[in-house]
Amino acid sequence: MAQGSDKDDRTRIILAHGGGGELTRRLLSDRIIPKLANDLLSPLADSAVIDPQPGKLCMTTDSYVVQPLEFSGGDIGRLAVCGTVNDLAVMGAKPIALSLAMVLEEGLDMAVLDRIVDSIAASARQAGVPVATGDTKVVERGGVGGGMTITTAGLGSLPPGMPPDPQTIAAGDAILVSGPIADHGLAVMAARKGLGIRSTLASDVAPLAGLVAALLNSGDGVKFMRDPTRGGLAGLLADLSEQLGRNIEIRERNVPLTPAARHAAELLGLDPLAVANEGKVVAVVAADAAEKVLAACRAHPLGAGAAIVGHIGETADWPLVELVTAAGGKRIVQRPYGEELPRIC
Amino acid sequence: MAQGSDKDDRTRIILAHGGGGELTRRLLSDRIIPKLANDLLSPLADSAVIDPQPGKLCMTTDSYVVQPLEFSGGDIGRLAVCGTVNDLAVMGAKPIALSLAMVLEEGLDMAVLDRIVDSIAASARQAGVPVATGDTKVVERGGVGGGMTITTAGLGSLPPGMPPDPQTIAAGDAILVSGPIADHGLAVMAARKGLGIRSTLASDVAPLAGLVAALLNSGDGVKFMRDPTRGGLAGLLADLSEQLGRNIEIRERNVPLTPAARHAAELLGLDPLAVANEGKVVAVVAADAAEKVLAACRAHPLGAGAAIVGHIGETADWPLVELVTAAGGKRIVQRPYGEELPRIC
Repeated sequence: MAQGSDKDDRTRIILAHGGGGELTRRLLSDRIIPKLANDLLSPLADSAVIDPQPGKLCMTTDSYVVQPLEFSGGDIGRLAVCGTVNDLAVMGAKPIALSLAMVLEEGLDMAVLDRIVDSIAASARQAGVPVATGDTKVVERGGVGGGMTITTAGLGSLPPGMPPDPQTIAAGDAILVSGPIADHGLAVMAARKGLGIRSTLASDVAPLAGLVAALLNSGDGVKFMRDPTRGGLAGLLADLSEQLGRNIEIRERNVPLTPAARHAAELLGLDPLAVANEGKVVAVVAADAAEKVLAACRAHPLGAGAAIVGHIGETADWPLVELVTAAGGKRIVQRPYGEELPRIC
Repeated sequence: MAQGSDKDDRTRIILAHGGGGELTRRLLSDRIIPKLANDLLSPLADSAVIDPQPGKLCMTTDSYVVQPLEFSGGDIGRLAVCGTVNDLAVMGAKPIALSLAMVLEEGLDMAVLDRIVDSIAASARQAGVPVATGDTKVVERGGVGGGMTITTAGLGSLPPGMPPDPQTIAAGDAILVSGPIADHGLAVMAARKGLGIRSTLASDVAPLAGLVAALLNSGDGVKFMRDPTRGGLAGLLADLSEQLGRNIEIRERNVPLTPAARHAAELLGLDPLAVANEGKVVAVVAADAAEKVLAACRAHPLGAGAAIVGHIGETADWPLVELVTAAGGKRIVQRPYGEELPRIC
C-alpha cells in the first residue's frame, strides 16, 4: 500500500499514523504524550495503574473502527469488549467495569445494531464484567464510514501481590505465544475482500482473563504479558526489544500458524507476524519455568495451541528482533512502518 | 429539520436517535439498556457508581463529534475533557483519571491536531485530572466526517458523606441554573453557518468541579445536580419531571440568556431552552436553602449569572414541565423530539 511522502506525514495525518507502527509511535511520543505527561500516563503500558484508594486500579480505553462490522468469528461489539478487558487482563487486573460509547451512522440497519448490542452483552457476560456506563451519538450519513465506531474504557483492580515485572527479564527467558497467530486480521480482510476462505478462517477474538489467570497461577515465572493486537507479534516484539534494550530471537518454525491463515496471508500478500490478533497473549517467562507455564497455557481451552517461539537475547545499543527462518536463514523483524491493514480493529 | 417516518425510526438508525430526546430515550430503554442490565448500569445517571473497594468510584464516558472542531470559546478537545469531568462533578465526585480515545481522519491538518491536543492538556490541567490512558486510531478520508472524533471516559471518587439525594425532592424546591443558557450550542451553530455573531457569542465550555463544590459546601440544601448538555434545559427538566413523577414550573423571564444568544437563537430559529450547554449546572435546592445556595453560586466565577428559574410542583400521573412566558401565558416544555442540532457536542 502506498505510503505518504516523508513531508506529508509531518504536516498531515496519514493512514500510516494509525497503524500501530513506527509512525504511530512517533506521533504519540512526539506530539501527544509529552503534552499530557503525568505520573499515571505511561507510554509503556496499555493500561493505567491508578492508586487513589487502598488497592490499585487499572483503567484502559480503545476505539474500534473495524470494517466490516461483522466477520467470521466475531463483530465490532465483541471486539470492543474483549479488546479492552484483554488490555486489563495482561496487566494482571480483574475487570471491574466497562464503559461503552457508540457513534452510529444515520442509515445503520437496526438489525445490525441489535446483533452487535447482543454480542456486546454476551461478550461482557463471558468476560464477567458489567457495562457500567455509556453514551450513544448519531452522525449524518457518511459521518462515520461503515456504520458505527465503538469506544470502550475498562476499569480493573489489581490483586495484592506482585504483578509480572518486566524489570526482571534476563537473557535466555522464553517467549511464549498462546496459540496460532494472525487469525483475526486475516479473517477481517477475508470478509472485506469477499475471499472464499471465510469458512475455514475465523477471528480469534476472545476474553483472555481466564487464560492469563492460568498463566499467573502456574508459578512466578511470568515476567511480562501483552496481547499482540495492532502491529501483531512483530510490533509487540519490536516494542519489547526497544524497551528492554535487548535483542530477541524467534524461530519461524515454532510460531503457530494454521494452514488456513498461512494460505490467506499468501493470497493477501501479508506477513502473518505483523497481522493483528484479538485472543492471544504473548508472555516472557523465566527460562526454568518455561515448560511449566507452557503446560498450564496448553491446559486452558484458549491456550491449547501455545508454543515457545523464541527467547530474550543480550543487551544491545541497537536491539533487534531476529527471525530464524524455516530454511535456516535470518531476517530482521521490524515493527510495521504504517497502516497495512486499516480498520482491522 | 425533517424527521424520518414512524416506520423508518424502527428499522433504521436515523439522526433523531442521537439527539438526546425522546427517540434516544426509546432506543436506549428498548434496545440497549435491557440487554446490558446489571447493578451498576443506571438509566438515571450519566455516571456509574462502582463499589469494589473501600470507598465508592464513579466512571463515565462520552463521545464527541462536534463540527466544526474549533469554535468560539472552545474546541472538541476542551469539550471532551470538560464534558466528561462535568458528568463526574454533578455526581459529587472528584475526578481521578480520564481516558482519551481519538479517531482521526486521513488528511486532518496536523496543526489542528496540535491545537486540539494542547487544548486537551490545558483543560485537563484546569480540571485537575490526569489523562491516564488513551488510544488513537486513523481511518480513511471520509471515515469520520469532519476530521476527528474523541471519546473520553472519566473515573472519579465519591467523598465520604451524603451525596445529593433526589429522593428528598419535594414540592416547592427551587430550580437553580448557574448562568446564561444556550451559549455552547449557539456558538457552534454560528461557527458552522458562518454567522457574523461569532465574536460576541462564545461557548461556555468549562470544567465545573469547583462550582459544584461551592454549591455543595454552601449547606445541605442541594438535592440534585446535572449539566444541561444535549437536549438543553428543556431535556433535563423533562427527564427530571418524568423521573420524579412531579410537575415543574419555570418562568421565562427568570431564565438567564444573553442578548447575543437571544439574537442568535432568533436568527437560527432555535428554542434556547433546548440548546446544549457545556459549562452550566442545574440544581434542585430545598426551598429554605435556595437564597443561600444561589449566593454561593454567584460568588463563584463560573456561577456569576446564576438564577432561580422555577420550582418543583406536585406529583402527577402525567407530569409536565410548564413555562410561564414573559407575556404571562403558559406553554408545555417538551424534551426535544430528535436531533435538532447534529454534532453539537
